[in-house]
Amino acid sequence: MRQRYQLKQRPQRSRSYDSEEHERGACEWCEYALVITLATILLIGVSALTIFWTFFYREGYGWADDIPEKQFNLHPTLMIAGFITFSGFSVLLYRICRCFRRIYVKLLHAIFHALAFPCIVIGFLAVLDFHNKKGINNFYSLHSWIGFVAMGLFGLQYAVGFFSFLLLLICNKGTANFRASLVPIHAAFGVLTFVLGVCACLTGLTEKALFTLGADRYSGLPDEGVIINAIGVAIIAILAVVMYILSRNKFRADARDMRASVDL
Amino acid sequence: MRQRYQLKQRPQRSRSYDSEEHERGACEWCEYALVITLATILLIGVSALTIFWTFFYREGYGWADDIPEKQFNLHPTLMIAGFITFSGFSVLLYRICRCFRRIYVKLLHAIFHALAFPCIVIGFLAVLDFHNKKGINNFYSLHSWIGFVAMGLFGLQYAVGFFSFLLLLICNKGTANFRASLVPIHAAFGVLTFVLGVCACLTGLTEKALFTLGADRYSGLPDEGVIINAIGVAIIAILAVVMYILSRNKFRADARDMRASVDL
Ligand code: HEM
Ligand code: HEM
Repeated sequence: MRQRYQLKQRPQRSRSYDSEEHERGACEWCEYALVITLATILLIGVSALTIFWTFFYREGYGWADDIPEKQFNLHPTLMIAGFITFSGFSVLLYRICRCFRRIYVKLLHAIFHALAFPCIVIGFLAVLDFHNKKGINNFYSLHSWIGFVAMGLFGLQYAVGFFSFLLLLICNKGTANFRASLVPIHAAFGVLTFVLGVCACLTGLTEKALFTLGADRYSGLPDEGVIINAIGVAIIAILAVVMYILSRNKFRADARDMRASVDL
Repeated sequence: MRQRYQLKQRPQRSRSYDSEEHERGACEWCEYALVITLATILLIGVSALTIFWTFFYREGYGWADDIPEKQFNLHPTLMIAGFITFSGFSVLLYRICRCFRRIYVKLLHAIFHALAFPCIVIGFLAVLDFHNKKGINNFYSLHSWIGFVAMGLFGLQYAVGFFSFLLLLICNKGTANFRASLVPIHAAFGVLTFVLGVCACLTGLTEKALFTLGADRYSGLPDEGVIINAIGVAIIAILAVVMYILSRNKFRADARDMRASVDL
């Protein structure tokens, strides 16, 4: 972490891959492997748990059939898949993959977000349509307000990333500095979007628990309540792992990023 | 932001205050003033709004009188004061005050957290006692689980900070390196604690809205619902401002921190 405190000099543009490799000991690789394993288990686990919850307690999925609640069920599943699982992987690998060439990392990052995008859109349409079918007002809850901001930021981020990737393809050298200046903004907004996604999920789970179980049954903590809380706890754990990785400069590929994006 | 990408060199221990001052132009001071003003308004505003909500819609505060709900009201007010307003100021000023001597900044940081501490303890006891009086189970909700982790981390952070400050007073020079090695851990856990506090507040507000208004009235978005949502939005705005400041290296005093804490 010490490197962090060295902030007052001009960026050095020469490559230092070898000296970097030097510094990485066995302990560091171990930590690296542990964090990746933990993150993978949590990210896949949280979506698996949500799907389990839906089938075991909430009668599975559906659209346009007799039970609008089945259509609602798409909402938490797809939102967690989009904002947590896919976005989580996308952020992690951007921070963690340093063995690949940058262009492949960018492609993977783009692919994961391309997977997240339809999840979020369909997840949103599912609840909107559910509300309209049942005649419930739209956008009344704190949850929906947070979700709205999170989705807006996600869309913006997607547009910026897409645009900058397009520039890379069209005119790599000429736009390198401009693209490099977008990186810190894109990264900061990306973290904010992720945290807002987490907040939206947690408030959504709280709402859902109170809607379907009701305050009385929820306070008796039935099995379903435990499952809902466990989904929330898994999301919190993912948040902690992601923030841990962001706080570790060792896991940081930016210095290389910038230079490599100029090279590519 | 470019300085960020310069991470691969050994920390330089010489002072560079002058060259730092050099780099800061009018525009930067302007941004600095704007962010501080915005943060102050939001941090005070969110607590003011909560108190307004309590008096205008929830009959004010109380303890050990006929209406246990009045005692519950202490919970959101004190939790928001402790985890958002006081902690927020404490984090901001640690990042932003660079004109004072480090020891004063540390003292202020300690004072704000010393104010947050009793708020959180009393806020927790208020809801615990409220639950026991009404015969409601403890720790059933996702909100209470998140709150539990947030309070645990807050306590740990408090202990670490207190201990390290004590070391500073007892034996400054000899413990400087040890204390410096605590800084990044304390900072990373501090951010996590803050974000968890935000999550606890948002889920708590959602619960409270559904408990007191009920799903039907809440979905009609009455005035009180708007106020509750507005408190949540203010908390989100504070989160965004805090994360913005954390992402800006200009606002960062660490490089000086470390050296100054060795000097003091
Ligand atoms: C990042 C993830 C999420 C986002 C962006 C999001 C967004 C939204 C939005 C915008 C609405 C309002 C739709 C309308 O008013 O027509 C909504 C409703 C709802 N969501 Fe989510 N949601 C997310 C995750 C979840 C999760 C994980 C659950 C858990 C079960 C959930 C449960 C609900 C419920 C119960 C409603 C209906 C009540 C209401 O409008 O607040 N959401 N969501
Ligand atoms: C960081 C801030 C907060 C923390 C750490 C926190 C912590 C807790 C804890 C530990 C409980 C469980 C007490 C028990 O079971 O005996 C609880 C209950 C509760 N809190 Fe909070 N709280 C926070 C903020 C809020 C806010 C802002 C509200 C908004 C009104 C709120 C509303 C509630 C409600 C309604 C309950 C009772 C239902 C339940 O147990 O979930 N909380 N809180």
